[in-house]
Amino acid sequence: DHSFDPNEHQHVRYNPLCGDWVLVSPHRTKRPWAGQVERPSQQDPPRYDPANPLCPGVPRPNGKINPDYQSTYVFPNDFPALLDDSPSPPDDGKDDSLFQWGAARGECRVMCFHPHTDVTLPLMTQAEVRAVIDRWIEELEDLGKKHLWVQIFENKGAIMGCSNPHPHCQIWASSFLPNEPRMKDYNQRQYYLNHGTPMLMDYVVREMEKQERIVVTTDCWVALVPFWATWPFEVMVLPSHRHISRMTQLSSQERDSLALLVKKLTTKYDNLFECSFPYSMGWHGAPTGPRLKDFEADKYWVFHGCYYPPLLRSATVKKFMVGYEMLAQAQRDLTPEQAACRLRELPDEHYKLKNK
Amino acid sequence: DHSFDPNEHQHVRYNPLCGDWVLVSPHRTKRPWAGQVERPSQQDPPRYDPANPLCPGVPRPNGKINPDYQSTYVFPNDFPALLDDSPSPPDDGKDDSLFQWGAARGECRVMCFHPHTDVTLPLMTQAEVRAVIDRWIEELEDLGKKHLWVQIFENKGAIMGCSNPHPHCQIWASSFLPNEPRMKDYNQRQYYLNHGTPMLMDYVVREMEKQERIVVTTDCWVALVPFWATWPFEVMVLPSHRHISRMTQLSSQERDSLALLVKKLTTKYDNLFECSFPYSMGWHGAPTGPRLKDFEADKYWVFHGCYYPPLLRSATVKKFMVGYEMLAQAQRDLTPEQAACRLRELPDEHYKLKNK
Ligand SMILES: O=P(O)(O)O[C@H]1O[C@H](CO)[C@@H](O)[C@H](O)[C@H]1O
Ligand SMILES: O=P(O)(O)O[C@H]1O[C@H](CO)[C@@H](O)[C@H](O)[C@H]1O
Repeated sequence: DHSFDPNEHQHVRYNPLCGDWVLVSPHRTKRPWAGQVERPSQQDPPRYDPANPLCPGVPRPNGKINPDYQSTYVFPNDFPALLDDSPSPPDDGKDDSLFQWGAARGECRVMCFHPHTDVTLPLMTQAEVRAVIDRWIEELEDLGKKHLWVQIFENKGAIMGCSNPHPHCQIWASSFLPNEPRMKDYNQRQYYLNHGTPMLMDYVVREMEKQERIVVTTDCWVALVPFWATWPFEVMVLPSHRHISRMTQLSSQERDSLALLVKKLTTKYDNLFECSFPYSMGWHGAPTGPRLKDFEADKYWVFHGCYYPPLLRSATVKKFMVGYEMLAQAQRDLTPEQAACRLRELPDEHYKLKNK
Repeated sequence: DHSFDPNEHQHVRYNPLCGDWVLVSPHRTKRPWAGQVERPSQQDPPRYDPANPLCPGVPRPNGKINPDYQSTYVFPNDFPALLDDSPSPPDDGKDDSLFQWGAARGECRVMCFHPHTDVTLPLMTQAEVRAVIDRWIEELEDLGKKHLWVQIFENKGAIMGCSNPHPHCQIWASSFLPNEPRMKDYNQRQYYLNHGTPMLMDYVVREMEKQERIVVTTDCWVALVPFWATWPFEVMVLPSHRHISRMTQLSSQERDSLALLVKKLTTKYDNLFECSFPYSMGWHGAPTGPRLKDFEADKYWVFHGCYYPPLLRSATVKKFMVGYEMLAQAQRDLTPEQAACRLRELPDEHYKLKNK
């Protein structure tokens, strides 16, 4: 039989949001793996560790003592990649097409999700996750007054370079529009100019019709494996009931509904390989600061979340994005449809709570 | 003192070849590291392992027995990501801007560098490295007859997803132009249209004048840390004496000179942290197959090599390209100038051969 089957036959798929392609090679799932395996995630950390600078009441490297916080807690990163008062490079580089540099200013903050070190988002209550969402929005409002881009992101798990087991994320705000949002800004704008509708709202409608890549839904949100996903179990979170361009626009109901979605999605993630599932994730929406009044951007930008988890086959075997991927193009083995199906079919109850 | 010092103060730099930016935060080298450390590279593997399918005389998974090869040895990848006879997706996706896919055809080969498992490029003789270069060129000539893009790449080290310690690389040839070379094709073409000269030849002249980022030179080649490097010790290899657009154009003298450069560069890499330095590397030049007669591309493309090594501080502490880097923009700590200086000052003699 020589008819094309996307779950059998290699092909390329286009990512209209970032403007690049992914190579899909489903037949390659048959490949054996003799390479490096990751260490399984350690024992659960203790609930409270007096030596952990993210715990309530513990001193941080700069000598300040954390308050005895009960919910979320935000403080300036002690080793920020972005400072707000750094001198700018001289202007002479501006016209040199080969040695071009520019000023970078910004602020980096750390946000603890919960006072306990031994919980993660899927193990928190919906109300506790809602408190995290409320705090994200407050931070975005605050940092977004001044900064062009506010990147909220979570590195979860030692494999993702996360150096502290306490549940937390980071917020890096910058005077420049970084590469990824710059591409997304460009591509969403082009689509809007061509179609008169926001790309990702058109996309979510089509995905809800097709029902092939949906993982979880709640009242106002959908989590799906995008048609163009590069990471094995990559997921995108999108508003499903109305166009939202920035996280700050979320109503109280939308926040509750997003809290439920985050809890459900991360529970499925943990259930997939029965481990605390590592990933990097973050939120993207219309730019802020000097572009808060760019009402055109409001029309074409759709607020969304991106989950990039590296695991491929088990709690210890990840997908390496190396040689071909770095030099040529991202490549994936199982198809986005297969990944969505596996996630969708997992229970909604966390494996750690099952026997309680 | 508030004057700008690139080795002290954060800034962004533009990559004119790929069209994106990197955030440079040199003050961040002071950050302590409490996160995941990599396992130091294992004991040296045995010279010959009868169970290793890359060794001479050993059967491969498909039952074929490797010849008793004495130099390089190339064979088809037993688990190829690209097949040459896969059915194509239906055309109906062509006009759908949200669900766009396309045909992907190609071939994947594996190339052993040497019959011995316990050597690597820096430990091979210049003549042996020259044999590798000759074979690369043969393969490029062969696969380039038909395929639009031929990606030669080496994943070195378990940390780079390399699953076999035998010295080898891979060659993936495809019917499509992958993302990275597509961007480089576009940007080199634009530069040529604007300036009438090939971007990377202008660049290499400027770098030879500045002498700030040079790591190693030989008669015909230069290895330097590009102004816009993202990986801590990233290196680019460029022709320094004449414009070369494809690896197949190399004269015998240029091949010898490149063999020497590869040996010197990889020796410095190993000497940096006194370990077998992991990286992904590969070669980029003008496209092939249907574009072999694109004489315009010959004018703007400059053949070059890219080394992307992950280690940052020691043999066991790497740079994680995660959260901010995946969602926003690549970020580096030490500056390209500092990285070049450290590599440049390392001895040309391999640490393992020092006491022999
Ligand atoms: O083909 P290998 O060496 O088994 O696989 C390695 O290199 C490939 C090409 O970069 C990657 O797709 C794989 O993730 C990696 O593990
Ligand atoms: O700031 P952290 O958590 O110590 O550092 C981690 O996240 C950062 C932002 O993605 C990365 O630049 C670092 O490489 C990574 O180790």
